[in-house]
Amino acid sequence: MSVLRVGVAGAGRAGALHARNLALVPGAELACLIDADPDGAAQLAHECGGVPVFATLADAAASGLDAIVIGAPTFAHHELAVGAAQAGLHVFCEKPMALTVAECDEMISAHEAAATVLQLGFVRRFRTEFTEAARRIAAGDIGEPMVVKSLTRGPGLPPAWAHELERSNGMLAEVNSHDFDCVAWLAGSPIERVYAETANFKGADRGVEAKDFYDNAVVSLRLASGAIGTIDGTCPADYGYDARAEVLGSEGLLVIGEVAGMSLLEARDRETGTVRPISRTWPERFGEAYREELAEFVAAIGERRAPAVGGAEGRAAVAAVRAANRSWLEGRPVAVAEES
Amino acid sequence: MSVLRVGVAGAGRAGALHARNLALVPGAELACLIDADPDGAAQLAHECGGVPVFATLADAAASGLDAIVIGAPTFAHHELAVGAAQAGLHVFCEKPMALTVAECDEMISAHEAAATVLQLGFVRRFRTEFTEAARRIAAGDIGEPMVVKSLTRGPGLPPAWAHELERSNGMLAEVNSHDFDCVAWLAGSPIERVYAETANFKGADRGVEAKDFYDNAVVSLRLASGAIGTIDGTCPADYGYDARAEVLGSEGLLVIGEVAGMSLLEARDRETGTVRPISRTWPERFGEAYREELAEFVAAIGERRAPAVGGAEGRAAVAAVRAANRSWLEGRPVAVAEES
Amino acid sequence: MSVLRVGVAGAGRAGALHARNLALVPGAELACLIDADPDGAAQLAHECGGVPVFATLADAAASGLDAIVIGAPTFAHHELAVGAAQAGLHVFCEKPMALTVAECDEMISAHEAAATVLQLGFVRRFRTEFTEAARRIAAGDIGEPMVVKSLTRGPGLPPAWAHELERSNGMLAEVNSHDFDCVAWLAGSPIERVYAETANFKGADRGVEAKDFYDNAVVSLRLASGAIGTIDGTCPADYGYDARAEVLGSEGLLVIGEVAGMSLLEARDRETGTVRPISRTWPERFGEAYREELAEFVAAIGERRAPAVGGAEGRAAVAAVRAANRSWLEGRPVAVAEES
Amino acid sequence: MSVLRVGVAGAGRAGALHARNLALVPGAELACLIDADPDGAAQLAHECGGVPVFATLADAAASGLDAIVIGAPTFAHHELAVGAAQAGLHVFCEKPMALTVAECDEMISAHEAAATVLQLGFVRRFRTEFTEAARRIAAGDIGEPMVVKSLTRGPGLPPAWAHELERSNGMLAEVNSHDFDCVAWLAGSPIERVYAETANFKGADRGVEAKDFYDNAVVSLRLASGAIGTIDGTCPADYGYDARAEVLGSEGLLVIGEVAGMSLLEARDRETGTVRPISRTWPERFGEAYREELAEFVAAIGERRAPAVGGAEGRAAVAAVRAANRSWLEGRPVAVAEES
Repeated sequence: MSVLRVGVAGAGRAGALHARNLALVPGAELACLIDADPDGAAQLAHECGGVPVFATLADAAASGLDAIVIGAPTFAHHELAVGAAQAGLHVFCEKPMALTVAECDEMISAHEAAATVLQLGFVRRFRTEFTEAARRIAAGDIGEPMVVKSLTRGPGLPPAWAHELERSNGMLAEVNSHDFDCVAWLAGSPIERVYAETANFKGADRGVEAKDFYDNAVVSLRLASGAIGTIDGTCPADYGYDARAEVLGSEGLLVIGEVAGMSLLEARDRETGTVRPISRTWPERFGEAYREELAEFVAAIGERRAPAVGGAEGRAAVAAVRAANRSWLEGRPVAVAEES
Repeated sequence: MSVLRVGVAGAGRAGALHARNLALVPGAELACLIDADPDGAAQLAHECGGVPVFATLADAAASGLDAIVIGAPTFAHHELAVGAAQAGLHVFCEKPMALTVAECDEMISAHEAAATVLQLGFVRRFRTEFTEAARRIAAGDIGEPMVVKSLTRGPGLPPAWAHELERSNGMLAEVNSHDFDCVAWLAGSPIERVYAETANFKGADRGVEAKDFYDNAVVSLRLASGAIGTIDGTCPADYGYDARAEVLGSEGLLVIGEVAGMSLLEARDRETGTVRPISRTWPERFGEAYREELAEFVAAIGERRAPAVGGAEGRAAVAAVRAANRSWLEGRPVAVAEES
Repeated sequence: MSVLRVGVAGAGRAGALHARNLALVPGAELACLIDADPDGAAQLAHECGGVPVFATLADAAASGLDAIVIGAPTFAHHELAVGAAQAGLHVFCEKPMALTVAECDEMISAHEAAATVLQLGFVRRFRTEFTEAARRIAAGDIGEPMVVKSLTRGPGLPPAWAHELERSNGMLAEVNSHDFDCVAWLAGSPIERVYAETANFKGADRGVEAKDFYDNAVVSLRLASGAIGTIDGTCPADYGYDARAEVLGSEGLLVIGEVAGMSLLEARDRETGTVRPISRTWPERFGEAYREELAEFVAAIGERRAPAVGGAEGRAAVAAVRAANRSWLEGRPVAVAEES
Repeated sequence: MSVLRVGVAGAGRAGALHARNLALVPGAELACLIDADPDGAAQLAHECGGVPVFATLADAAASGLDAIVIGAPTFAHHELAVGAAQAGLHVFCEKPMALTVAECDEMISAHEAAATVLQLGFVRRFRTEFTEAARRIAAGDIGEPMVVKSLTRGPGLPPAWAHELERSNGMLAEVNSHDFDCVAWLAGSPIERVYAETANFKGADRGVEAKDFYDNAVVSLRLASGAIGTIDGTCPADYGYDARAEVLGSEGLLVIGEVAGMSLLEARDRETGTVRPISRTWPERFGEAYREELAEFVAAIGERRAPAVGGAEGRAAVAAVRAANRSWLEGRPVAVAEES
């Protein structure tokens, strides 16, 4: 198999992570960066062996590409993904998939028409404690899922465009998309109804003036299977990056992840107690899984098959996130179907 | 100080626990049992040194008592607590306090009028990891509470009367009263609005035919302080008794409790992995705290002061539980004030 | 059964703990304190309800006693325990049992002659994770013990008399007696040969000038069963009180205890990580077990039977400790029989 | 930099792991396998892209190589490593380095003469919880190391040649080489004196007839710095692969690793309790570190510098292991200098 030439669109944190990881994935190589601000991407390009930087997808495609990884802001996903499909390029798209369900539908159609791979960046599906939990649930080890809970908290404010609900769908999209996907994946059933409460505790202190900004949310869930659940999110949460889930089935419980990270315990004084490191960032929390998902992308392309997680899953998460936003704005439970 | 003579009303699981614990609490002694079914209480009475069993509170009071512990079913709390006040007896009342807020109000008034102690059995307020968390929150260690979560799951069906919503307020009352109290206590703010989803996964299999029975619930919360949160409950949950809470403040996180119980790890084969015991029951999970709360009761009586947790807290939990039940029945968020 | 009148000999930390705990043990009451420095014991006596303080065992016995708890320094154990037996008093004796095996033998003989109970304060035998481990090993859950490890570390220098090897047998006696007992108990086999290495890291800084003082030790063990093991001790270890054990059997592993104490996790900043409290002192680590061992003492007396742990176990630990001290002094493995 | 052509000598478990990992290490590629039994290596060669298999190092070198990874049995290390140096090839050598200190000296000399890299496969030096611990110790976070402990246990009997002490130095070499290296590395001081006890619990049942076979060992240690410590090993230990260490310094404790592996907790019935997966094998326990150590090898070659861990460390571990074997055979503490 020849080596796939992959461009990375967006030279921010997610794009940079994927660009670096491509060097560790057999069968693929980083061919170029694509960024509307080529100067801003120059440092990353240099670090990655001096790959070229293009300002547009069209220019990049013209240089000879097989696929792109989309790490750009959410509002740019739709145009990039559809354009790539039209250029015959496979797409690995970071979450959230897009701003609206209609955008998602167009992205899915474009890739179906082009017979190209469209994979979504739901990285937890490649992280060992999550995949092993999913395997056990599918095998019936804990019976029928009754209650499914998932949370994500991360340090640092999201980028400014993500403060605006209109341009980003807010924290539930930027941070909790993973949870909406996880719940449906682990429970084996789509989310049908959501009710959300939100709070804004730190926005003012940190200079966020965007209308409808929130930095905390809890969401109640009802699934098609009859299972119920919760999602909660907080960002910024200065204590670190925290991603945990819990599935209670009719015959058992699975608790996925823990707050502490590295298995190293320190004790220096008895007033403090024992101390263990925490994952400071999402790359630290999910490191290897970011390589695994790219390896899956390469494999799906090579085997001309659907990837492990694709457009349908990305669309479902966008619909559920939008329903949750509507819920707290309107103060009522909202059926996900209202957004689908 | 002379030794308090205490009667225990209700010879079921909770009553038996308190009756036995009275022997371990300096300053108090078990004087009698009170049970509408004296024969059923005979074994416990024998085990507790041959104390007498009375069929009514009046008979017990006539034998010479200072206080009673109410471990009877919820629907009997109001009559016992009011009767005790009228007889000048201090009352330690198991949760939930009563079936309605009106009942709670009458219980509170009766004890205020009699100047007797009315303590509620919110045992988590006496359990070390909960009290230390509360102390730290009050000290400002984690800043302002933003998200507060609490869950309880227990093995075994509740008694038959507790299957009926009308006679018990259901699982949210019987099992999750502790969580409603904990959230408000830890956050330092009352619950203002609730939204609940429920599910019934095991009722039919286990022969429960009661209308409106549910064995799983998740509740979204909004507190007066602006904090948000969740409560979830499952009963029966065959894997053991599980009570955990989590408070995320503006400056830090506290995670209270863990699934595993005793600090003993076993590993026998590498396919299974490592195994740690779990608390099988609530007495195992909170053992010492059940003695601590009785010691507080004795101390409050001796010092003629209000107990650490009393009627106001019991009433608040009843109101929030009833609002949560109304929420899922009516499919909408419900202000706790609607029930207060 | 009438209430046992118990005197506590030694008003230091251990004595004070036992004196306070007697109030929580049904069937016993603190009758007096016995201390060569009655003024020093006055505060404790006052706190414990104003019990009298006697300067000698003889005076105390004359006041009417059933039993004594020996919490005095090790070098005083022999005289107190033998004297108590001669006065017909049951004895609960803190570890280490005595300074020499010969002393232990005389204590055992005196109580055999008097038909009085002689219980040793090996408190781990009453702590739930240790007793459950012992139960499982005895039940064959992990097969035949192959490797047994036990450690104890504690904050704070021991009292000055315990710095001198001659008067105390040193840290291996004062701190690690528990481990020597635990290993033999858990493995179900006596220790036959020991080899010790010691180190003195903090003595000079903390003003200890005693010859042969050490504040760290590791001991290799060979048991009669063929099992091998290690014991290690450090005191002072400023990070808290730490007591853990590990038994590897032919069919499985048991890990007993953990460094972290209370099940409360705090995370405030991502550079630090997650923090859990630690047991600051031995009463914190083993709290309830100190009451359980007194309850066993009361029960053994009432039932006229041998206690769960007695003179033979105390003697075995003294012999093994002395063999370990000889080992590092002479730089060779030492058979425990050389000290027995 | 051109891509390094690397041959892997020995197609057993360790060799296969390294051969597969070479595909994930930028800057290197698997060029061939070297195995005295080329047919036995054919399957692995096929799986690794059809690389050639050579029966001798000379044949492999003639095909054009830059470096070799030695995964062959210990008794073959010396000849391979010296031959490679003479052929101008860099060497990554699995532990234990060789059978004798004399062999180690010749390997070191040969690579010094050839100015080639000689790296040892002490994989723990590349595993995050170990490296972070080492970093903290070096930074003085826990003061001066006083007690250092390290253990390794693994499932399954070692290969037959490793049952014989003469051909392998036994379990202390095959399994615990890592611990001997870790202790010296973490403490920042060489091991000076050892005392070992061993036991053979399963050999007979599993058909091992080799003289001097042992499957359990505990070793007491004294280091040049004055620190003391222990190492223990058990193989086979059917419960999984277990590698943990503990360093107690004058100002704090570090506990490295834990028995449980993946952060996934399952609870299904309250009699069993909570269950967490364990690392079944050493590749599972140290997975990513096996790639990291190869990346370091590539980097050291590229930068013409000494690797992070080399011949001196390998030699020190061989000397300490041999001293430990002599200790239990002769029943006395042995200075490592006796073997150096």
